[in-house]
Amino acid sequence: MKPFLLPLIILCFYFTPLNAQQKALVLQTDFGLKDGAVSAMKGVAFGVSPELKIFDLTHEIPAYNIWEAAYRLQQTAAYWPAGTVFVSVVDPGVGSARKSVVAQTKTGHFFVTPDNGTLTLIAENMGISAVREIDEQRNRLPGSSRSYTFHGRDVYAYTGARLAAGVMPFDSVGPLLPAEVLRIPYQQATAANGVIKGNIPILDVQYGNVWTNIDENTLKALRLGYGDRLRVRILHNNKPVYSGEMPYVTTFAGVKEGQPLAYQNSLMNLSFALNMDNFAARHKIASGPEWTVEISKR
Amino acid sequence: MKPFLLPLIILCFYFTPLNAQQKALVLQTDFGLKDGAVSAMKGVAFGVSPELKIFDLTHEIPAYNIWEAAYRLQQTAAYWPAGTVFVSVVDPGVGSARKSVVAQTKTGHFFVTPDNGTLTLIAENMGISAVREIDEQRNRLPGSSRSYTFHGRDVYAYTGARLAAGVMPFDSVGPLLPAEVLRIPYQQATAANGVIKGNIPILDVQYGNVWTNIDENTLKALRLGYGDRLRVRILHNNKPVYSGEMPYVTTFAGVKEGQPLAYQNSLMNLSFALNMDNFAARHKIASGPEWTVEISKR
Amino acid sequence: MKPFLLPLIILCFYFTPLNAQQKALVLQTDFGLKDGAVSAMKGVAFGVSPELKIFDLTHEIPAYNIWEAAYRLQQTAAYWPAGTVFVSVVDPGVGSARKSVVAQTKTGHFFVTPDNGTLTLIAENMGISAVREIDEQRNRLPGSSRSYTFHGRDVYAYTGARLAAGVMPFDSVGPLLPAEVLRIPYQQATAANGVIKGNIPILDVQYGNVWTNIDENTLKALRLGYGDRLRVRILHNNKPVYSGEMPYVTTFAGVKEGQPLAYQNSLMNLSFALNMDNFAARHKIASGPEWTVEISKR
Repeated sequence: MKPFLLPLIILCFYFTPLNAQQKALVLQTDFGLKDGAVSAMKGVAFGVSPELKIFDLTHEIPAYNIWEAAYRLQQTAAYWPAGTVFVSVVDPGVGSARKSVVAQTKTGHFFVTPDNGTLTLIAENMGISAVREIDEQRNRLPGSSRSYTFHGRDVYAYTGARLAAGVMPFDSVGPLLPAEVLRIPYQQATAANGVIKGNIPILDVQYGNVWTNIDENTLKALRLGYGDRLRVRILHNNKPVYSGEMPYVTTFAGVKEGQPLAYQNSLMNLSFALNMDNFAARHKIASGPEWTVEISKR
Repeated sequence: MKPFLLPLIILCFYFTPLNAQQKALVLQTDFGLKDGAVSAMKGVAFGVSPELKIFDLTHEIPAYNIWEAAYRLQQTAAYWPAGTVFVSVVDPGVGSARKSVVAQTKTGHFFVTPDNGTLTLIAENMGISAVREIDEQRNRLPGSSRSYTFHGRDVYAYTGARLAAGVMPFDSVGPLLPAEVLRIPYQQATAANGVIKGNIPILDVQYGNVWTNIDENTLKALRLGYGDRLRVRILHNNKPVYSGEMPYVTTFAGVKEGQPLAYQNSLMNLSFALNMDNFAARHKIASGPEWTVEISKR
Repeated sequence: MKPFLLPLIILCFYFTPLNAQQKALVLQTDFGLKDGAVSAMKGVAFGVSPELKIFDLTHEIPAYNIWEAAYRLQQTAAYWPAGTVFVSVVDPGVGSARKSVVAQTKTGHFFVTPDNGTLTLIAENMGISAVREIDEQRNRLPGSSRSYTFHGRDVYAYTGARLAAGVMPFDSVGPLLPAEVLRIPYQQATAANGVIKGNIPILDVQYGNVWTNIDENTLKALRLGYGDRLRVRILHNNKPVYSGEMPYVTTFAGVKEGQPLAYQNSLMNLSFALNMDNFAARHKIASGPEWTVEISKR
């Protein structure tokens, strides 16, 4: 062995922690930022490893709105590199039977969350390759087990940080479960007999436009041309809330002020709007799994 | 000396700054995030050391609410490792006689703040081991002394960053003061003659539940059993605001809708609620040092 | 060559990325933090380099308010070190003819933004040394070109991150343009014939005080003494909105409650207030390039 190899090897090991771990930890909650809850989670994560890169997705999920948590994860996860660890804590059922899990996707992302539907859209879009239940005996902030446990901080942030920091391998999270997660049922985009059905996953709130999950391919079934008129029905829990006709156009200026129109939004999905007005507010439309749309060509 | 020792030593020194300093800087203000004040503070801190780990506690403290600043520090500080440097700028008395200090706690945390009561609860819970007044001649962003000084940025963020980055030892902050801080007086949880007195440090705003500082141990003095009825008085600056009776229960379902109840909250402190309603809004209860509660067994 | 020099050199290169790049990436948008847009931008930036230091200026710029974006950049940029890369995305003209640029200032800061007026105040205060148009063929998140492009994420955050991380030199941004940016016209602080004109760049919203851009030097033209009375006119798009008289004082207590006063604010600029009342709300004054003030000595 040459004399200079030893220091080289020693140094590589010495600095390994700095290089080895480049995984981001990304936090999402419905806690808001007015109190100290999110900061306490970050303190726990920082305590696991001061080199950890900690980011926020959002902490403004409406209280207990699992569906919106699911949507925000799906909207952003693909823009983070494989290996990124997401911690999502939107949990109406604290203390109930839902399991605390870490799910690994086929894309190599990790999600630490109560298995309460939060991973509905991630499962669809990224595919789940493995799910482990968090063993709370092993994976809990030391000293936090007496009396009250704040799971978001003591279990989820702690476990996510240890995974992201490389302090703990995925295997040590806890027992392997079947590679599936709880999915909230909703209307997929489907075409049959000249009718397309779909869901309203989210509103374009700033303008009150109604976005659907009906993509370009599904829409082709109607063989629409620009200017063709559509029949549109919107249902909440299967009860009709809106029924009307509107043209399929490329630009809002294609109809008079205050008139309805159908168009492709920036995600290339079918959407509904009122020109210079708020479709959702005017017709009391919201979003979520219980909202369905049905369209056909007139 | 063996020939490979020299590069080893050189390199260790060369990379030392990356390893030596792993202290977090955690910022709290009442500035909000709509303007650039917080970002300017972070820019100053980053200018001290680009390796610094900078985090937020919250910037949504209600304007000039020192008590809430005190509460949020106490709620989170223990979840950050020893050595963490907190900068808290909630300062109604800018330009007044309050001193700018750095306090070190017995737990090894540091707090950079105007000494205006912000450390009331930290002092109680962590204990103060040393206080130094910030020497603003030495500890001020270079070039910032002409005319206007924004203390949060030019003095507090700058000093906190230099401490956290290890650029300056605690000794160099300024002259040593007595190891005590200004404390806002409030009703401690005490039991005497069958009456327990306490304070309302904070509300559980989302639900309007009223939290007290009466812990399990203090509560034992009443020898309460579940189902027993309590007499509850709530006073603001010693004037009665609420007076009533309610059962001590384990679950909100223990009373009818709209009825009051007493229970232990998630911090194991006595709290008051209306089942399916908002106790604080209904009875115009707020929180802070001037709010006192008195309870006794009926 | 001595035997230990080789490992030394190798190691220095090996660790160079950790030391070489200490440039901050600072993000500003009008997206808010309720959805995932900002987090997706950070994911893209983190994907460029996990060592990148990513910060927020603010994401609460009122929708499409280019002027406020300009003001917030100018308020904070100087507090970040030279080399810092700012990404500002406030862009009413998505898809319009405005160019996407990176501007370098004489102070060595970089700004990645649509050239729509966002750099008006930076250009004035820091000076522009070079402007390059972003070549979107080369500087775009790989895989993002099909159909819809979210420029804030796919072009601006990606380009800013590559600059800040040192992955790409400024030269590679795209073709050099003339070293100037689009400037929003507004009333500079000027004195002539005993009248000073100026602009209202921003309000002190918390108190409703009206800030102008009239600095100490310009004000000297009036040879004001404390207690002297001023004639003040405020115009919106050249139409008078307020006209009145008030004393020039050092402290709000210098006038009775509810009375108007002129004073120097914390930036040493002339400002107007009502003692214990809200000047802006009372007289319906806002801020922006279309607001002008005219003052003279009575």
